[in-house]
Amino acid sequence: MGHILKPRERVRIFSRGSAVGHDEYRGPLGGLFDFHDKTDRFGADTWEKAEGELGRTALNLALNRAKLSHTVLDLLFAGDLQNQCVASSGGLSSFGLPYVGLYGACSTFVEGLLCATMALSSCRELSRVGVVTTSHNCAAERQFRLPLEYGGQRTPTAQWTATAGGCVLLERGESGVCVDRVMAGRMVDGGISDAANMGAAMAPAAADSLLRFFSESGEVPTDYDAVVTGDLGREGSAILSDLLAPHGISLGDRHRDCGVMLYDPDRQDVHAGGSGCGCIASVSCAYFLPKMEKKEMKRILLMATGALMSPSSIQQGGAIIGIAPIVTLEVRE
Amino acid sequence: MGHILKPRERVRIFSRGSAVGHDEYRGPLGGLFDFHDKTDRFGADTWEKAEGELGRTALNLALNRAKLSHTVLDLLFAGDLQNQCVASSGGLSSFGLPYVGLYGACSTFVEGLLCATMALSSCRELSRVGVVTTSHNCAAERQFRLPLEYGGQRTPTAQWTATAGGCVLLERGESGVCVDRVMAGRMVDGGISDAANMGAAMAPAAADSLLRFFSESGEVPTDYDAVVTGDLGREGSAILSDLLAPHGISLGDRHRDCGVMLYDPDRQDVHAGGSGCGCIASVSCAYFLPKMEKKEMKRILLMATGALMSPSSIQQGGAIIGIAPIVTLEVRE
Repeated sequence: MGHILKPRERVRIFSRGSAVGHDEYRGPLGGLFDFHDKTDRFGADTWEKAEGELGRTALNLALNRAKLSHTVLDLLFAGDLQNQCVASSGGLSSFGLPYVGLYGACSTFVEGLLCATMALSSCRELSRVGVVTTSHNCAAERQFRLPLEYGGQRTPTAQWTATAGGCVLLERGESGVCVDRVMAGRMVDGGISDAANMGAAMAPAAADSLLRFFSESGEVPTDYDAVVTGDLGREGSAILSDLLAPHGISLGDRHRDCGVMLYDPDRQDVHAGGSGCGCIASVSCAYFLPKMEKKEMKRILLMATGALMSPSSIQQGGAIIGIAPIVTLEVRE
Repeated sequence: MGHILKPRERVRIFSRGSAVGHDEYRGPLGGLFDFHDKTDRFGADTWEKAEGELGRTALNLALNRAKLSHTVLDLLFAGDLQNQCVASSGGLSSFGLPYVGLYGACSTFVEGLLCATMALSSCRELSRVGVVTTSHNCAAERQFRLPLEYGGQRTPTAQWTATAGGCVLLERGESGVCVDRVMAGRMVDGGISDAANMGAAMAPAAADSLLRFFSESGEVPTDYDAVVTGDLGREGSAILSDLLAPHGISLGDRHRDCGVMLYDPDRQDVHAGGSGCGCIASVSCAYFLPKMEKKEMKRILLMATGALMSPSSIQQGGAIIGIAPIVTLEVRE
């Protein structure tokens, strides 16, 4: 069977919310986010709880934009980078909503869009569904690598986990920003075991997904106003380009990587670019979805990229497995 | 809107596979499992990798039972208890299948059934979908509590993480063991922060789900041949009974808890009973689904229970949040 899925009922994104930390606010997209906190704490007393607050804030912002209360939501899909996804459960439990927890590393936002679209398309009892994903630099660094206080030297290929959260709300509908098709990622082991080179670990999965998508659909990158990747960064984006070239595919100026867009390399020392569950979520909600609402973009391909690894799997010599799910969005009258 | 979802297309479970470790084989259900390994190692050199092998084995057993190759599967939903779900990604990546990673702690098996049903019901391009969940005692104990080598004293309320994995394969269809309805769990904070009392942490979520389900459906427990819970254990089962009683609901002899069923308390010192993602998965695949295939049971309610916590959330004073998704299964001619 084919890998590209066209759910039987059309689903639209009817609201969105984004919240970021100080460094993300200082970046080129800073003015576009709905909310930022200069302290990166979001009122919490630990970085882990602060990530939970990022998710809660993003969901509240999306509800507020739609002038709705959380009680109108029938189901939440959410995930984050913390062990056992405790940022999502800690931050969202007080809403008392039916919940499905996801783990796709930095690919969770698009994985969530895929699951939410399937849920709305298959169950008439569901009216409105939310997707929330978050990451927090200070929580992620001490969990996956080293606590920031250690002051470790970072390699040029290292990426900067974004302190960011995004939320989209979806319902069945034929107009506005609609989900057109979805495609799940395959787990691809590119042989990389360096936790400071996420771009190289994820690029083979990104290439696998794009090659399957363009081959099966017969489309080309220029059929889209943007081919958006989540957080390949500069390193991973260059590798993706090299992996696609032998197949005659060039993304060219259609390619936009949220991790590259989020920070200014001349002013902000983030090395290869941003990363994290919240990176593509916040940039989609603050930049790409508004462009589509204003019809400055009409069709985009959104591909998130995740590195399925834990410190223990790295310590035991395991490779970092990449995954890259895709959704295509289009503006309909 | 209602919480009980009836996906628009009927989905059936057409195959199943179960694999367990030595203690689970020695228990009352030992002879029913498809596969066991007396060493608990499954050919791997670490406990974490052994858990990956458990999932791979369960999937292969399910494929083998159906006389199919993995290439006929269009999508896998999987999850486990390890940080960043690396047992699932490590064990299943070599199949090269489209993959959606889930995190619902010990509730992941039913969460997977819910998502797989929605996926098959919404996307005609999908023919066959798999759900795999695993847990491994030695990996879970050292990750969540203490390494076994430490020899820590366990409290009477503690549960024994099962070394077990289960896999079901699903397709659209009207006959055999069919999914009737699904319901996502809500995150319920019962105020428990003792990582050695999972039963008490999960029972409030189990009560919340059952009360919503029976209230909305108008059904009673005796409408089912069994009301199956995943791993409340003896402690959590007693608390669930107490929580349901004021609402006039008694599960009585319909209640079967997979964590209680898995071990013999007279011969096996597992305290309050078994737990883990693999507990309800393996017991469903080895005991309940075969009973339904033989029509000894015709309708069951399957509710998995998960404790959404990590060691860091416990150390930071967070409560353990419970969740309990439900699927109902029925035999159709």
